[in-house]
Formats: sequence, C-alpha cells, structure tokens
Amino acid sequence: MTAALLEQYQERIRTELDRVVDFWLKYSHDKEHGGFFNCLGKDGKVYDELKYVWLQGRQVWMYSRLYRTMERFHRPEILEAAKSGAAFLQKFARVQASSGPGKCAFCLTRDGRTVKVQRTIFSECFYVMAMDELSRITQDKEMQADAESMMDRLIFWVQTDSSDLGRPQLPGDLPINSMAVPMMLLCLVDQLTEGRTDVAEKYKDLSGWCVERILQHIQRDGKAILENVTLNGKELPGCQGRLQNPGHALEAGWFLLQYALKKGDVQLQKTAVDKFMEIPFHTGWDKQHGGLFYFLDVDGHCPTQLEWNMKLWWPHCEALIAYLMAYSHSREPVLLDRFKQIYDYTFTHFADEEHGDWFGYRSRQGELVLDFKGGPFKGFFHVPRCLYMCEKLLDGLLERQDS
Amino acid sequence: MTAALLEQYQERIRTELDRVVDFWLKYSHDKEHGGFFNCLGKDGKVYDELKYVWLQGRQVWMYSRLYRTMERFHRPEILEAAKSGAAFLQKFARVQASSGPGKCAFCLTRDGRTVKVQRTIFSECFYVMAMDELSRITQDKEMQADAESMMDRLIFWVQTDSSDLGRPQLPGDLPINSMAVPMMLLCLVDQLTEGRTDVAEKYKDLSGWCVERILQHIQRDGKAILENVTLNGKELPGCQGRLQNPGHALEAGWFLLQYALKKGDVQLQKTAVDKFMEIPFHTGWDKQHGGLFYFLDVDGHCPTQLEWNMKLWWPHCEALIAYLMAYSHSREPVLLDRFKQIYDYTFTHFADEEHGDWFGYRSRQGELVLDFKGGPFKGFFHVPRCLYMCEKLLDGLLERQDS
Repeated sequence: MTAALLEQYQERIRTELDRVVDFWLKYSHDKEHGGFFNCLGKDGKVYDELKYVWLQGRQVWMYSRLYRTMERFHRPEILEAAKSGAAFLQKFARVQASSGPGKCAFCLTRDGRTVKVQRTIFSECFYVMAMDELSRITQDKEMQADAESMMDRLIFWVQTDSSDLGRPQLPGDLPINSMAVPMMLLCLVDQLTEGRTDVAEKYKDLSGWCVERILQHIQRDGKAILENVTLNGKELPGCQGRLQNPGHALEAGWFLLQYALKKGDVQLQKTAVDKFMEIPFHTGWDKQHGGLFYFLDVDGHCPTQLEWNMKLWWPHCEALIAYLMAYSHSREPVLLDRFKQIYDYTFTHFADEEHGDWFGYRSRQGELVLDFKGGPFKGFFHVPRCLYMCEKLLDGLLERQDS
Repeated sequence: MTAALLEQYQERIRTELDRVVDFWLKYSHDKEHGGFFNCLGKDGKVYDELKYVWLQGRQVWMYSRLYRTMERFHRPEILEAAKSGAAFLQKFARVQASSGPGKCAFCLTRDGRTVKVQRTIFSECFYVMAMDELSRITQDKEMQADAESMMDRLIFWVQTDSSDLGRPQLPGDLPINSMAVPMMLLCLVDQLTEGRTDVAEKYKDLSGWCVERILQHIQRDGKAILENVTLNGKELPGCQGRLQNPGHALEAGWFLLQYALKKGDVQLQKTAVDKFMEIPFHTGWDKQHGGLFYFLDVDGHCPTQLEWNMKLWWPHCEALIAYLMAYSHSREPVLLDRFKQIYDYTFTHFADEEHGDWFGYRSRQGELVLDFKGGPFKGFFHVPRCLYMCEKLLDGLLERQDS
C-alpha cells in the first residue's frame, strides 16, 4: 500500500519537475544580455526586466545541480543557461561603490547596472552556491576559488566584523541571532564540502557554530521555534522576539537533519524532527483553511506583517522536503502523514496545470492573490529544489522497498 | 433631504472622533519615558514598546491641531500629551551618528535609543508638522525655529543634495519623482504658512514646484495617476513605473484642491477633482467586494506587493476627506455619492463599536486580517485627521445650508 502511494508521488513529482524546468528554460533566458528574467507572468511573459541577484544565483545553482546529478537533465542547454547566468553574475553582481570587498547587489537592471544593495549577506550566499555548483561540472578552478573567497568574506562578516555590510551601529539596534544566517551558512558548508574531506575539515568549526546558533532558536522550554533570538540564545522583547516563521523552521529542520545524518549524530537527528518539524506543524498549520501560515506570534498576538496569514509556496516546499527526509530516515508513519497532508494542499493550491510552474501566493482562505510565476522573491529555486529533493528521496525509498 | 443626511454624517463622525481621541488618550501615553506607545492591540493593550518617529510626530500634530482648533478638545490633558510627545522627539529623534545634520530616526526603543534610520525624508517631515503645530499653541519661538530649520534641511535634501540621507548613488537607480515627496512638502507648506504671509512668500516657489511635481503623475493621456515617474515627468519602465496607489492619489487630490482653493486657481481645482479624485475611484474601487485596493498596475498585471488587494483604512480616510472637500466646494451630487459609497464601506469595515478606534487591515473579501489599532504604520493620524476634516467640512456645509 505504502509503496503504491510512494510510486504515485514519485510519478507526479517527476512530471512536475520536468514541467517546471521546461517553463524556466522556455521563458526566463535573456539571450541579449545573459542571465535570467525573473519577473514572469502566469503564462511566462516578462512583466519587468529587473534581475535579482538572489534569484540569478539560485537559478545557476539549480540548473547546475540538475545537470550534474540527474541524468535526464544532463542536457547542453541547461549547462549553457547555467554558464550564462554565472557569467552575468561574475560580470555585474559585485557592487562597484563604497561598499566593502565582495559586496554584491540585490537588484540589477537588465544590462547589469546596480539598482539596489541590501545590507545583508544573502546575495553573496547565493553567489557562492552558484559558483561552487557550476565549477563542479566545469572543473573551473578559478570559479571554485571565487566561491571560496566569497565564502571566507561571508564568514568574516558574520563572525568577525560586519561593518562592510554598511549597516550603521545604532544604540537601540543590538545584534541578533536571526534564523536565516546560521541556516544559510550551514547550507553553504554542505554545498562546499560535498566530496571534499579537506574542505570539510576547514569548515568543521563553522558547522558546529551554525548548529549551535540554530538550536538557540528553540525557546519556551522547548515548545517554540522563534525566528529571532539574542546572540546568547535568549528571547528578544516585542514582536521581533515573538515572531515564528514555520516555513523557515522547517527548512532549518531538514538542513539540520541532513547534517546530523551525515555526522551520524542521533541526538541531533531527533532534535531536528521533534523540534524543527513537529513544532512548526502544530503551530503553523491552519486548522480552519489548511496550509501553513507565513508568520505567527508565539503569544497569539496578531503579527504586524500584512501578509502574515497568507499561504506562500515556499514554506510548503520546505515542509515537503523536511517530512519526506524525516520519513525516509525513520519510516515513522506519522511523518508520511505529515507529508501527505502538505502534499495534498500544495498540489491543489500551487501547481498550475494550465501553464506549468507554480503559483506562489494565496490568501488564508485559498484565493489566488498574486498570479505570477516569477517575481522579486520567487524564482527557479524552492519549487524545483523541492521536487528534486523529493524525487531523490522517493527513489531511495522505493529502491530500498524493492530490495 | 441632503441636509438630513449631512447631519447624520456629522453626528456619527463627531461621536467617532471623540471615541478615537479617548482611545489614544487612554492607552497610548508612556508616563514613564514620555512620548507614545504605538503598538496597541484591538483593546488598547501595548503589545510592543517600540516608538516610531513618524507616528510620534503625527500624534503630537493631531493632538495640537485638535486642541488649537476645536473647542471640545481644548483640554489640558491633550496639550500635556502633545508636549510630552514633542519633548520626547526633541530629545531622542535626531540620530547621533554619521548621518548628516537633522537626520531623524525611524524607530526608537521605549527609552529613546535609535533602532532604525530610514534613508528617506518622512520622519523629518512629521517632526516639522509636530513642532510647528504645537508651537502655534505655546508660542514657543525656539520650537517654531526648530521646525523651520528642519524644513530648510528637507528642502535642501529634496532640491539640492540628498547625499546626507545616506542612499548610495547607484548606476541603475536613477532619481525618480515619487508622489510622496511633493505631496508631503505641499502639506508642510500648508502647515507652516497658515496665517503667516511672510512665510507664505518664502515658500511660494516651493509650492509651485510641488504642484508641478504632483501634476507630473498624470500619465497615459490624462487617464491614469502613476505613483512614480521620472524627474521630467515621463513614465518609468517596469512595475515601479506602472504602479498605482489610489489612496495616495486621493490624498494628493485633496492637498491640491485645498491649495487651489486658497489660491483661487480654478483650473487646478478642476484638475484636482477630475484627475486625482475621479481616476482613483474608477481604477481603485473593487467592484466585486467593495473598498479601495491598496496597489494596482496600470496595465492590469498583478502587482508584486503581497498586500496589493487588501483594503487598508487610510486610503478610505483620505477618500472621505477628498470627496467631501470637493462636494463642499462644488455641490456636485456625484461627489456626495462618492463620499456616501466610501463612508458606507468605511464605517462597516473599519470602525470598531466594541473597543473604539478603527481596525486597519482587511482582506480583499473583507475579513479582518490584522486586528490591532496601532502598529508600525498605523497611529493616531489618518483616522482622527479624517474625522476632524470631515467634521469641519460638514459644519461648513450645514452652516451654509442654514443661512
């Protein structure tokens, strides 16, 4: 019975991944200036030519990963697209301004002029992911060195001195431990160390630091995952301190589980599932209308984010990976139930049978609020990464079932 | 018939204004540190202690204006509250950092430490409004000079050199004419020049400049009001260029109409109504569910703002002022119809009979999405200003009806 269900998932997920890849291959490539159009309407039409560095980097990474690790995507046009995106990034992403060395833009014009620079580290993180993954295919040592030197810069900003990022030091704005930073760095360590024991050794302490920082977000006697805490793991005052982001917790959950499985750390595996997967499910699932809320306040106040009760595609993508990875490891039926529940909501609410790729933004009640496929924060990343990871996990599950 | 209807509006609006003032007097005052709590739940409970400079300045202005111009609010506790807010601002709002002279914070801790600084001019604008209005009551010449010197700084930033604001010059980020800037400055000129012919003379050119910049937002052969245009009044590319913000256009409309009435400029009065009030009504009104959309794309693409289809309180407040001011001047029945339509939606969707003050955020379909009365962008301003302006306009209309 379970095998039949898993096969059904595998079939649908495989088909979806093909359709999603086709959509972006067909509509997003900028043949004139290189790189990718990010703003694509529901039918793929470009409605804005701005290029977002996060999304450019993520698309290069995703194409490269698919090319390198899945036979049916080992196609020249996918490699060419990845190369075009990487060349665009290498040429234009770095800010030529007063910002410190390595700082990347957030947004560029179609022809690569800087529009906006964020005072955070995320453009640079996706730059690292892109360059490392592509260089694994091309064996381009310079590109790999570019990724590593950007990674060193990131670690310097996060652990030593963030003043290059350009955020002024303000007396009421104390540094905090925001979930995104240790999560992202743990993800980068996983990326950079795959198959490289020397690099793994280099980043060993960093992984430990990331895990510790992520675990600090377990609060309220182990009953809540909070998005922002102090640098020594205490709860922050006000809305910022009470904020919960279930999708982010779930994403952190599978990053942790993946790391713990590699390390053979049984206790951490259990924490990843019990805390970072079970808690966000119980707090984040909308019992009235289904789907995962975007933001919640741990004390039940109304969050101040206008979009707090919307249902976004990416938390659902991350949840699918998390529960399937956890199930795949433990075979606990409840984890497959979780996966099934998220899967049913996701495929009825986000997949677009008509034009391919997925919608991203529904109201609490389920109405489609934003109908585009690509926008400033939605590109070729969460959907294909989810489908890719789930297909791999299902392949593994079904293989083991057979044997 | 019309008189009876106007009296009914007057009665309700007067009662609402009393209730709204009572709510903020009761719940928002920080007796320990001075200034106001901004984050108030639906029942007035403080759910976050951060203090937002825009909202602090607006509350000082509103209390002072009510005290100065409406007999029933000429009460010591209202003046004391305004003074407390102004003292808090004078003590803490200015950033003690690398920012240029006069730069104000966006957000402060309860005890006045800077949390965040925006690289825009709006904290400073509300600082000017607050100090000027309060100094009209107290005859505090130093405070008035403080307002005027900040105003000079604002004009310098907007017309001469904005580098003190701290926004880096980026090659893809050309300066634009965003509706908010000339609107806000026109509003400040109106504030500073009331009853002062010498000051009016000083800012005569500035008013002309503001009007010209506002009129540049009339685009598409006079059929659309766009939120962002180039500095020489052309349409910008992409989403930014196509953005419509009906509430903002309506607010600009009544600022323009008020200015044109003072000047006796008949052509500008007509433009204010025909362009800045009629167009946003036709494009912005949700024919399916009622209420004004927050953002729209002039070509019918989906806006990229997640909250685009939500119904916010403030566009409705601005619409009420706009249509009643326009009706009050021209007595065109269609303008009273517009007022009535907005009024009915507003009072059924935003006013809170139970706890007083108004809700701020409903979904497109009308569900309450955020239930707080005060938040980072909602304070004691749009609601009481709307009720205050409407009460004054209705008083005028009914007086003239009597005579």
